[in-house]
Amino acid sequence: MSLLEQLGMSCPIVQAPMAGGATTPELIAAVSNFGGLGSLGAGMTPPETLSQQINTIKSLTSQAFAVNLMVLSETESSTVDTAMPQWLAQHYADNDIEVALPSRPAQSFAEQFQALLDNPVPVASFTFGIINLEQVAALHKVGSKVIGTANHPLEAKAWADIGADAVCVQGVEAGGHRGGWLADSDTDPLGLLTLITQARAVTKLPLIAAGGIMTGAAIKAAQAAGAEMVQMGTAFLTTHEAGINRAYKDTLLKVAQGERPALTRLTRLFSGKPARALINDYLTTYAQYDAAQTLPPYPQLNAMTRNLRAEASQAGDVEQLSMWAGQGVSLVRSESAAELMERLVREV
Amino acid sequence: MSLLEQLGMSCPIVQAPMAGGATTPELIAAVSNFGGLGSLGAGMTPPETLSQQINTIKSLTSQAFAVNLMVLSETESSTVDTAMPQWLAQHYADNDIEVALPSRPAQSFAEQFQALLDNPVPVASFTFGIINLEQVAALHKVGSKVIGTANHPLEAKAWADIGADAVCVQGVEAGGHRGGWLADSDTDPLGLLTLITQARAVTKLPLIAAGGIMTGAAIKAAQAAGAEMVQMGTAFLTTHEAGINRAYKDTLLKVAQGERPALTRLTRLFSGKPARALINDYLTTYAQYDAAQTLPPYPQLNAMTRNLRAEASQAGDVEQLSMWAGQGVSLVRSESAAELMERLVREV
Repeated sequence: MSLLEQLGMSCPIVQAPMAGGATTPELIAAVSNFGGLGSLGAGMTPPETLSQQINTIKSLTSQAFAVNLMVLSETESSTVDTAMPQWLAQHYADNDIEVALPSRPAQSFAEQFQALLDNPVPVASFTFGIINLEQVAALHKVGSKVIGTANHPLEAKAWADIGADAVCVQGVEAGGHRGGWLADSDTDPLGLLTLITQARAVTKLPLIAAGGIMTGAAIKAAQAAGAEMVQMGTAFLTTHEAGINRAYKDTLLKVAQGERPALTRLTRLFSGKPARALINDYLTTYAQYDAAQTLPPYPQLNAMTRNLRAEASQAGDVEQLSMWAGQGVSLVRSESAAELMERLVREV
Repeated sequence: MSLLEQLGMSCPIVQAPMAGGATTPELIAAVSNFGGLGSLGAGMTPPETLSQQINTIKSLTSQAFAVNLMVLSETESSTVDTAMPQWLAQHYADNDIEVALPSRPAQSFAEQFQALLDNPVPVASFTFGIINLEQVAALHKVGSKVIGTANHPLEAKAWADIGADAVCVQGVEAGGHRGGWLADSDTDPLGLLTLITQARAVTKLPLIAAGGIMTGAAIKAAQAAGAEMVQMGTAFLTTHEAGINRAYKDTLLKVAQGERPALTRLTRLFSGKPARALINDYLTTYAQYDAAQTLPPYPQLNAMTRNLRAEASQAGDVEQLSMWAGQGVSLVRSESAAELMERLVREV
């Protein structure tokens, strides 16, 4: 039985988990109710509110959906590094923005994980690292399927080895954060097509292909290469249901209309971890620090830039925002999630 | 009539033009005689010997084949820049190798182009830049089809606009030099799948997909995405007919056997122009100059490193060689070109 059948899905499209509010319950429910798999990007969600969000989604759909967490050790998520790079401190000062580091750089993964055991979901998906055999067994015991994320064939194999039910293979084209954890996966970020090919060579696990996919033809291509489903993020960012900042959404649509270059870049400048974003003033101004790779690691830098991003979001200042976007960004449209899904199914 | 039919081909596989001796007449003829399209990488071939090489290929096959040139202005190809970067001069000194700059950094493109008009070939393909309407017309007049190379949808459109017969879309995965010329194509090197999708959106021209393709499944994927054919380079490097250095070939095979990491990188350190190579000591030692992007441009740096590469080749020192390879390098095999083609056709 295919993963699609096991999850009761009717079309092979996963809406990517995008942390930070993009994946509203309305978006997730729209995708799952259409027959796809909606995903909550819950990596930045406090453990105490996670269960409530899950309940909201459950009230809007009886179909399968996923909740995605970012794997982090307790030390990584709780240690506050106050040694801000000089250029960033200067940037705060120049823009008259208060630094205000959070009390911890990231949520407790252990507590978020426990929330998923206490209020089980159809699919638990993971990024930024890998869980262990016992954790997979615990999720299976409460009836959740497990999906891992891989940027490299060795990561795909690792998820297969611990008993995951599927792995999302995310190519260099993908917008937002890269989900792998092995150093090699960033030394040479693999293109999606070659990543599918190489992951297929090392595991029989169902593959979900992610990165730059915007059309039915690309879905068919991913399937021809050996993936069972695709995961799409950028295409959903401009749907009516997506909960992103208006200025960010408008900028993506401007790119599609040719009013702004469709130029993205993998950058560590926002969070310390490589992520693909639309190029803006912040990225070009500090490009040298990106190249030199002397930045604080994730989640430290993420915590350090948080107030900066919050202020930019408030002000609608797209030149200072982290506008995550994949290489297919020029093909986004302003439409509902259902309209997007209908179009993709028709093209396939 | 499809491009495949126009060229009398029976399988949709182009053997990539790889300059520097890899594409022997035997390799080209083996591919074309099998029903694919063999290509001579003639960018570094002196105009006066090009015609002779073409005659040798014609003596070995009556099928279509391509000759590929690198588009360069006369100024770019003839001006000798003697201001070698300090680190490179030091590297020559440390290794007791004589610098010996060639009398010109690259062959005259105008004279190479004239050689193609004087001794016409079935297909003339181009990389590193674009030719003009008159040059396309001149090639058509002598019966040659014209194929351009693009790393970006705008480059694909440019080739369509001047009347090319097809365009090779080369994704970030591809080994060796990137064939585009617009600055944007290197700001954000596009993955193959998204490049095909975006090129397909701006032109109806037949597309030849290149980058990381090693299997029949990947060929089917490229076709599903909208390409008519694929172009493969790395897979042919380890065939018996390929004319590369023994140590280089052995190293590629070691990667396939898991005895060396399958890590490649886009680098400007060998030639001044971005090209994907297996990571070795030379690349890691001078990585900072690559990142800083303060290198002399192509073809100047290429001329400056020529003796270094020649000495390394002579000595079989793979840590100083430019070992061009694509991201699919872990799937190479030691086999004949015909065996490779048979396997691919069977998989498709």
